[in-house]
Amino acid sequence: MLRGGRVVTMDASRRVLDSDVLIEDGRIKAVGPSGRRAVGRAKPALIDCKGLIVLPGLVQAHIHLCQTLFRGLADDLSLEAWLAQRIWPLEAAHTEASIHASAMLGAAELLLGGTTAILDMETVRHTGAAFEALESIGIRATAGKCLMDAPTNPPALREPTDTALSESGDLCARWHGAAGGRLRYCFAPRFAPSCTGPLLRAVSDLAARSGATIHTHAAETPLELDTVKRETGHDEIAYLDSVGISGPRAALAHCVWVDKDDIAVLARQQTNVVHCPSSNLKLGSGIAPIPEMLAAGCRVAIGADGAPCNNRLDAFAEMRLAALIQKPRLGPDALPAAQALELATLGGARALGLESEIGSIEVGKCADLIVLDLGGAHAQPEEADLVSRIVYSARAADVRHVLVDGRIVVRDGMLKTADLPEVRRAANAEARRLRRAVGI
Amino acid sequence: MLRGGRVVTMDASRRVLDSDVLIEDGRIKAVGPSGRRAVGRAKPALIDCKGLIVLPGLVQAHIHLCQTLFRGLADDLSLEAWLAQRIWPLEAAHTEASIHASAMLGAAELLLGGTTAILDMETVRHTGAAFEALESIGIRATAGKCLMDAPTNPPALREPTDTALSESGDLCARWHGAAGGRLRYCFAPRFAPSCTGPLLRAVSDLAARSGATIHTHAAETPLELDTVKRETGHDEIAYLDSVGISGPRAALAHCVWVDKDDIAVLARQQTNVVHCPSSNLKLGSGIAPIPEMLAAGCRVAIGADGAPCNNRLDAFAEMRLAALIQKPRLGPDALPAAQALELATLGGARALGLESEIGSIEVGKCADLIVLDLGGAHAQPEEADLVSRIVYSARAADVRHVLVDGRIVVRDGMLKTADLPEVRRAANAEARRLRRAVGI
Repeated sequence: MLRGGRVVTMDASRRVLDSDVLIEDGRIKAVGPSGRRAVGRAKPALIDCKGLIVLPGLVQAHIHLCQTLFRGLADDLSLEAWLAQRIWPLEAAHTEASIHASAMLGAAELLLGGTTAILDMETVRHTGAAFEALESIGIRATAGKCLMDAPTNPPALREPTDTALSESGDLCARWHGAAGGRLRYCFAPRFAPSCTGPLLRAVSDLAARSGATIHTHAAETPLELDTVKRETGHDEIAYLDSVGISGPRAALAHCVWVDKDDIAVLARQQTNVVHCPSSNLKLGSGIAPIPEMLAAGCRVAIGADGAPCNNRLDAFAEMRLAALIQKPRLGPDALPAAQALELATLGGARALGLESEIGSIEVGKCADLIVLDLGGAHAQPEEADLVSRIVYSARAADVRHVLVDGRIVVRDGMLKTADLPEVRRAANAEARRLRRAVGI
Repeated sequence: MLRGGRVVTMDASRRVLDSDVLIEDGRIKAVGPSGRRAVGRAKPALIDCKGLIVLPGLVQAHIHLCQTLFRGLADDLSLEAWLAQRIWPLEAAHTEASIHASAMLGAAELLLGGTTAILDMETVRHTGAAFEALESIGIRATAGKCLMDAPTNPPALREPTDTALSESGDLCARWHGAAGGRLRYCFAPRFAPSCTGPLLRAVSDLAARSGATIHTHAAETPLELDTVKRETGHDEIAYLDSVGISGPRAALAHCVWVDKDDIAVLARQQTNVVHCPSSNLKLGSGIAPIPEMLAAGCRVAIGADGAPCNNRLDAFAEMRLAALIQKPRLGPDALPAAQALELATLGGARALGLESEIGSIEVGKCADLIVLDLGGAHAQPEEADLVSRIVYSARAADVRHVLVDGRIVVRDGMLKTADLPEVRRAANAEARRLRRAVGI
């Protein structure tokens, strides 16, 4: 039981309650007035939340855990140099051990910073090692092997269509629904120019059959749009729709360069858009028209993207930036704090296809909960609106406790499910090896 | 002595050294190889910095400490509503007690987050109470009473020109050079439309005579430019120059709406520009052309502005955002990490007129130093470029120790110069009173 906190429920009426939260078998059993005696025979284990804030675990719907080891190795470079000189060669140099270390480091940062669920795109190889890390560290994750079958891909990453699909199918069979449903699979074509039409159509079928998510990038740069137009004759969002990469099962990261027609298609199909504000700035991609998408009825989530284009995996940084970057264009009342918090909770839950399981604190949902201490000087005075304090003032370091499926994964700011010094040691050893392997 | 850290000196050749830093009488006496025995008779007090990063204290050259209590009380509002409904009435409702509480809260956050020196603009009344807070908490500060003598100002804040100037003169006489030089005075006309020409000219004279800084806002919004043009017939930067608000002694916050001619004037005069990226986004002002100013040879510093338009006073957030927001406009190689760190150290020192005293770790300079622990998951791997880790990954919560004038003001992340729970209690009590006084 979480006792005595102020609970930001994110339920339909956005109630904020001074309540206990009772957890049983990994699910929320009751959200009730503080101080009442616990129901049932056994005295429940207590986490004292007096003076603290209880929130639904934050969700980031676009992460590349396989890139966590590349953090700081690809800064202030043009996008072409970023991919060709750094990200492609580094991904190609990955081994099982480095994929595992990269996932552990990223997931540790995510959990410590209050992110309890992610949609993750790995690289083309060793995705099983990432799942093993995710299983042990206790984060909720939907992850998938990256698919790159087009002849234009770098040879070290390109795979034949059949190999890519059959390996994906095997991973889906092994991991989709594992760890009591906490782990799920996504089919993850890198982006339209990396993939053949037959692969994209097959992905759509496989995802529909298995109930898995589709996770890809879209409309990140004008060059990407031009490439798709030249190769397919279609605008990118329309092309993706034509091959079945659309609808509630699909999550498209970025969508920076979308026009009114694209937005109308995304809204009508209820395709999930994943906004990555730090990444879109750092790579110079631009500012996605998120308020326009929300007004049109689009589903929108947020994500940090990979560590080398951010360089944090921090949902608080993304929420604040999502709210800030729209205002020069649309005025200071654009994308207010309450909407930013929705992107990181309810929006993320939808992007993972888990809106009935996570994203709010309601009876019956999974006990994915975070507890914040906003007692620091930077989040005072307490007079202010609580949601504003969470979005504009709070920071990842304010996270005290984190639960996933009712299991305590962070307590008093300490990771309980992995040995952080060992995670760090392995990450540094593997990062050194990768760096040497690609000669940077 | 700070023993065994990795020292980012910010000296002319930007050396990063594994060094001890020896401090005597508040100044840096030596920066030498680690492990060598301390020179002199007495064994110096040691701060163990093994595995930690030593940086010059960060400088924020545009802060309104008097607004710290307004944090979260004015979010997602248009600029007009922000000023007229919130900031003006709240400033007018300040008392000595609330000014003191507001300065203590802001300075606590600043010190805990690694900012050791600020340029601060108070409100029109009770500036002495702010200085008393700054004296006791131990931050380096150049602060000044806000000047608003034009007839268009809200009556509750407007002062006669003579009153404004004579009170400024008295405060300058009392506080400029106080606390062993740690406190200094600035003449602080709010912005051109708030002030009469005679006041601005008098400010220029007073500052020249006393050696004090001039601290104002400029070119924050197109409306401001239009107002100045209509009232004076001049472009704002040229108008300020014509009344003597220019040159190395002047710091102009924002400068978002400047053209090539303005930039040439700012560069030629060596006027200090203070970039406030979070504030410029949150109030919808725009993106200041900082790379263009740097290329033209302008002096540029950074600042968080007031808490209600940020809502943090966090130099790490400002550095990262300064680097990020230019990239969609100019490409991902614009304003690289090393340049962002310069703004927050050397640039800030210049804006305060203290470039010979602070801003780098060099023998003879004041011992304003911060020690970072970048061992957290979010700042791994260690392989990456250190400056990149500081700008893109590090966060205020990574600050372990802070020294100002050689005095330890933060140790192990704990404020040593004030009782934080009492700072928080006073801030909340005064914030409640202010909020009731203005009916929000």
